Amino acid sequence: MNFSVRSATKEDMPRVFTLIKELALYEKEPDAVETTVEDLEILGFGSQPKFHCMVAEVDGNIQAMALMYMRFSTWKGIALHLEDLIVTKKMRGFGLGAALLDEVVKYGSNLGVKRISWEVLDWNEPAIKFYKKKGAIILRDWDVVHLDEQGIKDYLSKR
Amino acid sequence: MNFSVRSATKEDMPRVFTLIKELALYEKEPDAVETTVEDLEILGFGSQPKFHCMVAEVDGNIQAMALMYMRFSTWKGIALHLEDLIVTKKMRGFGLGAALLDEVVKYGSNLGVKRISWEVLDWNEPAIKFYKKKGAIILRDWDVVHLDEQGIKDYLSKR
Repeated sequence: MNFSVRSATKEDMPRVFTLIKELALYEKEPDAVETTVEDLEILGFGSQPKFHCMVAEVDGNIQAMALMYMRFSTWKGIALHLEDLIVTKKMRGFGLGAALLDEVVKYGSNLGVKRISWEVLDWNEPAIKFYKKKGAIILRDWDVVHLDEQGIKDYLSKR
Repeated sequence: MNFSVRSATKEDMPRVFTLIKELALYEKEPDAVETTVEDLEILGFGSQPKFHCMVAEVDGNIQAMALMYMRFSTWKGIALHLEDLIVTKKMRGFGLGAALLDEVVKYGSNLGVKRISWEVLDWNEPAIKFYKKKGAIILRDWDVVHLDEQGIKDYLSKR
């Protein structure tokens, strides 16, 4: 399988959005995607981009993407967070995901980050095994907490 | 207990750093803090701040702090992440933490974020109960993954 990895451009966002929707469908949450292609174009490619995106192409077609942004750890300093790493279903197992992860780690290293973080479903054993092999630590005792848009409204109305 | 909440200034960073160190000691990881007061001053108060910090004062002394930054969800859009919410030990139970959380939610709402996120230790039942009461969702099946500074070096040397 021949493929190449490069930084995404604004013009790639429709295809990147298709990958995001595909993953949501796979995770049985198709309606959870409330963003649009325009959101990605505006928020990722303005004067202060909210994220950085990389894509992997096979024969000139985007088949995988990685989306990341900076975080800050009070213990470690600047960190890079990998929000999404998506390989389209028919292209899994050919190394596109691993190649993208390589580029993400290089990107973080070049930026001098002290940590690269992401999140994984605790039942996704193949992914966890892969990440561990790569040297990552799974923090099993930390849970993610979300206050969603409605939760924010409810919170403020109750005060 | 009379207290007030305000945005932190660069001059507050020595005291904020003391709170960060105190929490690390409480979590039995005093050596895990690799940042310095200078890191906080430079990274939080430059031309492109990496975080926003709020403090709660009692009689003009900072007794609690909240530290946050923006994230991006491919499903929801811009999000606010609460990295740390620390109340000094002797001042717990007086409402400083809840007052800071109120201000964090207001801050996020004013910025138009679609989500406010944070992380919690899965055995910290009092905290989890408090967050749930506030309308937050605990994503028990998502684990946090870290590739630390040494892990990044090892990863790249193995390629």
